[in-house]
Amino acid sequence: MVKDTKQAQCGLSVGLVEKKYFTFAEPPGLMQLESGAVLGPVTIAYETYGTLAPAKDNVILVLHALSGDSHAAGYYREGEAKPGWWDVMVGPGKGIDTNKYFVICSNILGSCMGTTGPSAANPKTGKPYGLDFPMVTIGDMVDAQKALLDFMGISRLVSVIGGSIGGMQVLEWSLRYPEMVASAIPLATTPRHSALAISFNEIARQAIMADPNWRRGNYYEGDLPRTGLAVARMIGHVTYLSDEALRRKFGRRLQDKSDFSFNFDADFQVESYLRYQGSKFVDRFDANSFLYITKAADYFDLRARYGQGSLIEAFAGAKASYLVVSYTSDWLYPTYQSKEMVKAMKKNGLDVSFCEIEADCGHDAFLIPNERVTTLVRGFLQRVSVNIGK
Amino acid sequence: MVKDTKQAQCGLSVGLVEKKYFTFAEPPGLMQLESGAVLGPVTIAYETYGTLAPAKDNVILVLHALSGDSHAAGYYREGEAKPGWWDVMVGPGKGIDTNKYFVICSNILGSCMGTTGPSAANPKTGKPYGLDFPMVTIGDMVDAQKALLDFMGISRLVSVIGGSIGGMQVLEWSLRYPEMVASAIPLATTPRHSALAISFNEIARQAIMADPNWRRGNYYEGDLPRTGLAVARMIGHVTYLSDEALRRKFGRRLQDKSDFSFNFDADFQVESYLRYQGSKFVDRFDANSFLYITKAADYFDLRARYGQGSLIEAFAGAKASYLVVSYTSDWLYPTYQSKEMVKAMKKNGLDVSFCEIEADCGHDAFLIPNERVTTLVRGFLQRVSVNIGK
Repeated sequence: MVKDTKQAQCGLSVGLVEKKYFTFAEPPGLMQLESGAVLGPVTIAYETYGTLAPAKDNVILVLHALSGDSHAAGYYREGEAKPGWWDVMVGPGKGIDTNKYFVICSNILGSCMGTTGPSAANPKTGKPYGLDFPMVTIGDMVDAQKALLDFMGISRLVSVIGGSIGGMQVLEWSLRYPEMVASAIPLATTPRHSALAISFNEIARQAIMADPNWRRGNYYEGDLPRTGLAVARMIGHVTYLSDEALRRKFGRRLQDKSDFSFNFDADFQVESYLRYQGSKFVDRFDANSFLYITKAADYFDLRARYGQGSLIEAFAGAKASYLVVSYTSDWLYPTYQSKEMVKAMKKNGLDVSFCEIEADCGHDAFLIPNERVTTLVRGFLQRVSVNIGK
Repeated sequence: MVKDTKQAQCGLSVGLVEKKYFTFAEPPGLMQLESGAVLGPVTIAYETYGTLAPAKDNVILVLHALSGDSHAAGYYREGEAKPGWWDVMVGPGKGIDTNKYFVICSNILGSCMGTTGPSAANPKTGKPYGLDFPMVTIGDMVDAQKALLDFMGISRLVSVIGGSIGGMQVLEWSLRYPEMVASAIPLATTPRHSALAISFNEIARQAIMADPNWRRGNYYEGDLPRTGLAVARMIGHVTYLSDEALRRKFGRRLQDKSDFSFNFDADFQVESYLRYQGSKFVDRFDANSFLYITKAADYFDLRARYGQGSLIEAFAGAKASYLVVSYTSDWLYPTYQSKEMVKAMKKNGLDVSFCEIEADCGHDAFLIPNERVTTLVRGFLQRVSVNIGK
């Protein structure tokens, strides 16, 4: 059934797309980070879909989560099997309609998908930074995106949209550059990382750092910390799912066996699935990037950063219209956390729509085709686009 | 407040206790395991509290969870700081009143607290079994306990009681030896391990097996897989807590710092806490035992074992009175899983009491002093004791 929905929703694709690069903060003009450290040069990998209006007033910024990249929609090559990670949402006639909007998605600072991160070359040594890469925050990620927009001459955004860590960037954008952001759509996210969310991130980091191949982040010329990163990914992956989703998808079904193995092989399909998720991930993601980005998420706290401890205070400077979306089975960033920010937005008289989506697939729900969310986003964008034109 | 409750509930202690050992299945009379393998000799570490009645009709079997041991109550030495793991429940005048009952608690098969497990000497080699130890099931653990009771000449139990994996043993006892079990009190448990619970166990096992010191379980003469086991424990530990408990206990409080470290030190108190829990655990627990016991829990499925896929069918042979207790914030074995078994018990016309306890501390709630649970258990035991006398 999900497949049919996907088919129906995918419709047309943006077609072939190209990854582009923009470099800034070239010495001596280094980028100032929240930690006080400086960084440069910084390269941002990005993609765009649709056409920029002459007035540059039709721009939507799509922000990705932990393991995402700039490839939100379309295909790099003809005949490629898999489109970008949010192709169900971004394209002609889709929730984010590329016939109307000029959509930008860039890889976040600290990642390993083309944007500068710990695996990039440290100009001081010519070798990968490793742990010499400075700690970056969600705010720093947003500042890097801002540099890209400055370069493109874009000073106003119809909307910023993203889920999970992408949603944190959405919220950060709306408070850091309120004059630029007409609307903001944070999905499946939180105004601050809870102790539970920090716990899972910390355990995943410990798993990476326990791998002897990690060698304090200095592994790029030797064996990679594959097993540590695989365990980290498995931990993350389970937190993106739900009891019900796992029961529906796997239950206690055995892996091509009629009985238990009575050894430590994968007896259950869910075990094989997790092992596969772990091993697949290490082929495409850098362990140090995992450490840096999860730490940035743990540091994320709008109350502390913008409100001196008060979430209401934090949104005092916001000017955007908001569409906040949470999912019933998301236990990583439960609905009550979205409700907290909705309340704070309302207390500030902001224009807020809130919707809790009935979905049994956990935190990952924001990536899964959902007609209701598509309709919500489309309608919300139409409304704010009219307003931005005024 | 919890401390006061603890103080109030602890009351008198059973005082000084002694760990005892019983050995059976000495070759050639080996123990037959569910897997088809045989094992022997098997030593069981156990403790008893209270006095066995001449008719041997006042016996309660206490069953421990994953990392527990036979030391349920009292102290080994005068002046010891910490009593046994369920001292709040077991003692004179307590929920399980040792003035009335003769209480037995034994370390489970496969563990490392005195009972034979993978760290015990393999009689064939004189060295620790490691992975040559056969896989054991919850049923095998119960069979080992049965051998101990046979040795003690006990053929009837007033009650079997335990939480989590201890609760699985409770359920298994009531179906495997229904004639022996007058009543059964499964707390915070499940009639079968869900895909979510299997997932966390599997990730924890992967963390252990990823530690190069694990060396396929053959580490007893070298460095122990400490980091792997610590990560495994951290994973387990988080699943025993809850979002709310973590928020209340730690929130986002920083660890003796006024600001973020902007490195990979433990910034948050919850991170230090988890690291401490992990490192403390490796001093007292064997990594292979962790693997074997979690696998036994994953295999646990009353439907498959006793009901040909039907939980109602599984309880067809049961004769016990049941008191089933679940906890609102237990997301590892949520209340709906307890309700499933209560329904199946009722369909079989069994005497069942069910109580969902309001508690925000997650799965571990069953170990925490709770006046309501103490009262429930006391009342239930009084009622079934009257019946057993008839």
